[in-house]
Amino acid sequence: MRLEFKLKYKDPNTMARIGEIAYNGKTYETPMFMPVGTNATVKTLSPEELKMIGSGIVLANTYHLWLRPGEDIVAAAGGLHKFMNYDGPILTDSGGFQVFSLAKPNDITEEGVKFKNHLNGDALLLTPEKSIEIQQKLGSDIMMSFDECVKWPSTYDYMASSVERTLRWARRGKDVKKDNDQLLFGIVQGGEYPDLRKHCAEELVKMDFDGYSIGGTSVGENKPTMYKMVEYSTPYLPEDKLRYLMGVGDPIDLIENSMRGVDIFDCVSPTRLARHGHAYTKYGKINIKNNKYKTDFTPVDECDCYTCKNYTKAYIRHLIVANETFGARLLSIHNIYFLHKLMKQIRENIKSGTMKEFRDQFVRDYYGNKE
Amino acid sequence: MRLEFKLKYKDPNTMARIGEIAYNGKTYETPMFMPVGTNATVKTLSPEELKMIGSGIVLANTYHLWLRPGEDIVAAAGGLHKFMNYDGPILTDSGGFQVFSLAKPNDITEEGVKFKNHLNGDALLLTPEKSIEIQQKLGSDIMMSFDECVKWPSTYDYMASSVERTLRWARRGKDVKKDNDQLLFGIVQGGEYPDLRKHCAEELVKMDFDGYSIGGTSVGENKPTMYKMVEYSTPYLPEDKLRYLMGVGDPIDLIENSMRGVDIFDCVSPTRLARHGHAYTKYGKINIKNNKYKTDFTPVDECDCYTCKNYTKAYIRHLIVANETFGARLLSIHNIYFLHKLMKQIRENIKSGTMKEFRDQFVRDYYGNKE
Repeated sequence: MRLEFKLKYKDPNTMARIGEIAYNGKTYETPMFMPVGTNATVKTLSPEELKMIGSGIVLANTYHLWLRPGEDIVAAAGGLHKFMNYDGPILTDSGGFQVFSLAKPNDITEEGVKFKNHLNGDALLLTPEKSIEIQQKLGSDIMMSFDECVKWPSTYDYMASSVERTLRWARRGKDVKKDNDQLLFGIVQGGEYPDLRKHCAEELVKMDFDGYSIGGTSVGENKPTMYKMVEYSTPYLPEDKLRYLMGVGDPIDLIENSMRGVDIFDCVSPTRLARHGHAYTKYGKINIKNNKYKTDFTPVDECDCYTCKNYTKAYIRHLIVANETFGARLLSIHNIYFLHKLMKQIRENIKSGTMKEFRDQFVRDYYGNKE
Repeated sequence: MRLEFKLKYKDPNTMARIGEIAYNGKTYETPMFMPVGTNATVKTLSPEELKMIGSGIVLANTYHLWLRPGEDIVAAAGGLHKFMNYDGPILTDSGGFQVFSLAKPNDITEEGVKFKNHLNGDALLLTPEKSIEIQQKLGSDIMMSFDECVKWPSTYDYMASSVERTLRWARRGKDVKKDNDQLLFGIVQGGEYPDLRKHCAEELVKMDFDGYSIGGTSVGENKPTMYKMVEYSTPYLPEDKLRYLMGVGDPIDLIENSMRGVDIFDCVSPTRLARHGHAYTKYGKINIKNNKYKTDFTPVDECDCYTCKNYTKAYIRHLIVANETFGARLLSIHNIYFLHKLMKQIRENIKSGTMKEFRDQFVRDYYGNKE
């Protein structure tokens, strides 16, 4: 089945929007956070738990599934949904991000990117066509174009020529895509250069993708630059298509970029933080391994998730310290729920026209914490 | 609340029995298998999952909880049930098994056992009194006496004097036990010497414990010796009290020892095997990492557990190979369910007087597998 997106409401005060995704008999409102299931599993969690905490789209990584178990095995299983027992929408990335992080400069050519398989050292080549072929076998609902992932900062000249390559690669991927129910997104690159972002967005829109991603925005702790990159991109994207900001999941970034017109976000943070014993709370992140939680028999946060309704900081601390995976599972449930709840608050405040007040109050609470 | 045991039925053909445990408004039939939650968590599983797969009593390890988080923290949390969010019955061991495995010969005295904390190297002493004190703070429903865990084989003379020490230690523990709802079990030792087993059982029964354990039976793959040790013990134990065979969980051992009058069993096997990718099936254990399961899109076993209803061998293999904890979780669910289902079949065959036929058929199926 095909995932459908409808724009429902535009905030008159900001660029924020409310949308609705319809898929497999269910609807999901945007802006939305998508948990990451790299290996066709959101680490430590079951599909039922994802539903319980309110997840909609989940992400799976093309690079990892290509290498293991292999896209042909996933296809033989009947596709990712059947393989991992998840009947909600699934998005796959292009594999580009991992491949560029493994490649040396000479390995990047017009054809694609050469790199060494991190599991066994085999020499492999990923191209725009190959990425689409793999994603089609995986059977995700939303596929990504293979783009050039450029390091930040890059010179204007390098970025200008890289954008042209990203556009050529987007076209090559689109040309081989089958006429099926899978959506294909183009990826807006261009670094922090407004005219390159505009050009890239406009050229992608001419190619008429099913949705648009904004890439290259993970510039460390440099939030103002990230926000600018989004501002330079969203105005040139069509209103009736989904907009996806890749790899962004810090709470304040979810708020700020929703206000800039982004619909969907993904990030490994909630599950990765959980495995290291970190939890989001209204008053900022806490480290559950801190000694002061040894005898703290209160929940992680003022929260109505499964974890906070049933377990104390002292118990979760004990599990994390003793390396018991149930601890990571409890914190993963809480952390993903925290981001889903935040997105719900964002949607409510978009609807009531109070996003700026909401942001200011959230920042005061969240960053006031001085643990 | 206090756990109550009632004998319901005796098999006229074997020594097997059907009993009923009443606890916190629920009843559980015996013989029963108890999953192990060493650190106040059955590895990878939630309390809700344990209930879903039919677990009754779960075991927690006194040694581990004493060292981390410490019995005072568990007591401050309101006891193990509240700490780990499990409202079914909980059994704790004495800590002796771990302590004896860490101690050198000179560290074992009449007072107790000196050993080094495996987490930080601190010198510690565990005594019969201390073991009861810790278990009382943990707040389990069934406590174990601190006994001497003797290596197998041991000479008759050594075992004879060890049994006397185990009896003196059992008495010392019983003397300091508070008059509360916690049950305290005595532990029958005596190796493979019939007269020592008889003597130990009879002396413990004179002290009137709330139930009786059979210890020292983990003699590797030497199953005939284990079965003899049980046969030398159960005839001297009162019919109206629970009988617990410690650390035994191999499917055939559950059958054979149920036929020798044992009511409850525990073992880390189902969860430990799961973490290593092994699964019980009707036709023997399989190793899910085997290459032949790469494209096996059938369930682990003919089984109606959550895992077998929803996931294929190929997916679970992928998770285990990729080190994803959801794989260990899925196999833990299946493996524990497998043992619970086996115990149910044992109870049905005790009731219908067909234990021997059931055993013979089970062995043919289970050990016929030549993977």
